[in-house]
Amino acid sequence: MSAVAIRTPQQTPSVLRVVGERTSDARRGETTVVLPLRHAGPHEVCVRWEVRGPAHLPVVAVLGGISANRHVAASRTFAERGWWDAQGDARWLAAHRVVSIDWVGSDGTLDAPIDTADQAAALAAVLDVLGIDALDAIVGCSYGAMVGLAFATTHPARVRHLVAIAGAHRPHPFASAWRALQRNVVALGQLQCDEAQGLSLARQLAMLSYRTPEEFGARFDATPILDGGSARCASEAWLAERGAAWAQKTSATAFVRLSESIDLHEILPSSVRVPTTLVAFAEDRLVPPDDIRALAAGISAPVRLQVLHSPYGHDAFLKEPDAIAHVLARALDCCEEACA
Amino acid sequence: MSAVAIRTPQQTPSVLRVVGERTSDARRGETTVVLPLRHAGPHEVCVRWEVRGPAHLPVVAVLGGISANRHVAASRTFAERGWWDAQGDARWLAAHRVVSIDWVGSDGTLDAPIDTADQAAALAAVLDVLGIDALDAIVGCSYGAMVGLAFATTHPARVRHLVAIAGAHRPHPFASAWRALQRNVVALGQLQCDEAQGLSLARQLAMLSYRTPEEFGARFDATPILDGGSARCASEAWLAERGAAWAQKTSATAFVRLSESIDLHEILPSSVRVPTTLVAFAEDRLVPPDDIRALAAGISAPVRLQVLHSPYGHDAFLKEPDAIAHVLARALDCCEEACA
Repeated sequence: MSAVAIRTPQQTPSVLRVVGERTSDARRGETTVVLPLRHAGPHEVCVRWEVRGPAHLPVVAVLGGISANRHVAASRTFAERGWWDAQGDARWLAAHRVVSIDWVGSDGTLDAPIDTADQAAALAAVLDVLGIDALDAIVGCSYGAMVGLAFATTHPARVRHLVAIAGAHRPHPFASAWRALQRNVVALGQLQCDEAQGLSLARQLAMLSYRTPEEFGARFDATPILDGGSARCASEAWLAERGAAWAQKTSATAFVRLSESIDLHEILPSSVRVPTTLVAFAEDRLVPPDDIRALAAGISAPVRLQVLHSPYGHDAFLKEPDAIAHVLARALDCCEEACA
Repeated sequence: MSAVAIRTPQQTPSVLRVVGERTSDARRGETTVVLPLRHAGPHEVCVRWEVRGPAHLPVVAVLGGISANRHVAASRTFAERGWWDAQGDARWLAAHRVVSIDWVGSDGTLDAPIDTADQAAALAAVLDVLGIDALDAIVGCSYGAMVGLAFATTHPARVRHLVAIAGAHRPHPFASAWRALQRNVVALGQLQCDEAQGLSLARQLAMLSYRTPEEFGARFDATPILDGGSARCASEAWLAERGAAWAQKTSATAFVRLSESIDLHEILPSSVRVPTTLVAFAEDRLVPPDDIRALAAGISAPVRLQVLHSPYGHDAFLKEPDAIAHVLARALDCCEEACA
């Protein structure tokens, strides 16, 4: 057990707690910092982080979707599977020192508007604590891609390459409408004392936006089952199970504030001055490829855009490990060459 | 005021009430009939109908979406705008005798599974009452297209041409999932004593499935407004207004049973032995053009398929009056020639 406290002029992160020796293969910590939340003013928050891999390797921040957390992959010290392990090939991580955080707001204790720039400020505070001046790369997926874009805008000197998968510079108005209705469903459940069911339904609605008709057409029957005088569609049980599991581990406040955070995300493409690799999925109904094309056209640095096909739509970032591994091999090699 | 009662061997429709003289330009009536509901067994239901135009003109049943009713267009007798008037050019109706019905279940008094074949049986019972042996055509949009397809299957001798706009032989599993979640949102509202809000949210979710990202992208801003510590997306007020207006005029039972009815819709394309014109919208996210193509390929009669483009997606059947008028001019001319 060791504790480190580093001060910077703008922010004053203080380390609450660190688990894991400096010599172990991974460490976790909690850092309190006063974040100047863009829409809610200064708030003291506790940022939970994990770092994995030896200090001499290139440092990468790996940031996932809104339901991801600081535990990216298993290590000797923290042996449970991480979210990247769950989605496929995590071997590329072994060649890097990996930093990640639990999203600010994900524990449900902060009931205020949070945006992606606030998450970027939290990541910067953790880098201060860890003594990391600059990241060799950020690999961000979905919400993590938006946070990566925000970080590249607010801290351009602290990252050398950005890989943003299935994220754009702004939310699409149709996707925003979809999320707004999910938040209203949560509110209906909350006001009426059935928070779990409201959360479950909101998550199920979100699932539809993450997936595609192509997947559902191949996976589920068109004929419903009549059960107790009502029809149950073929996908209902699967959706309900996913919704209930999710509601059990998530607070309504966390869901609403992180969902809202996506809608508050807004950066100017030209303010991104870091070499960037963008990945879009042609079938993504949440982050349309056209929005990522517009972002690519506006970035003020070398940019490479890859548009991939997947029946999984937005969730391809989780469900297409081979394609993602290929993108990362190319992007991070390029980054490492640039840094060599 | 006049009353007519006609008996047929299978069904025994009895006329409850007729409004309007035989000599007036339009009449309305209510007919009780025992319908052998496909999933719920025999039920006595009251079918409300309207007929408009003189008896010597070609007879067309005009059937709209689940929120449509028997009042297709204004007449001298019933001067309020009908749902076809609201969507555009209703001049073609003047050349026809027009029959329509309120959907069985739309008044919320029948809490049992209803399907499109049951609606077709209700239409047939009304034709018995009106002394109409066979329709020159059915023009059905969305749910009305499904009912038209069911009628062509169960009563092939009673219709000479079918125009089915934005409807297929079965629901798509993704659209079914979307509807199932809407019904679950209604149930959340009902159980928790906020039926109006549950219905409103369900309708708003349905609206998203009727429209497209293209329309929302052109119509609404990406930046939300922060209002009392929460973000409100640009489309939220518009959606909420539509949802509330709809909840005010619809019962939860009607919504749930008609929504379910779409999921219970299932016909064998080869069982359609009536000349058919099909219209699909390329951007329709609820009834994908590929499903309508599969239907076209299977129909056992001359079939013409037109795929049209519209930023309104599924709602193009309401929002593209010129394109629809063009389709009808061609389809009904052809039908009238065939009948001449």
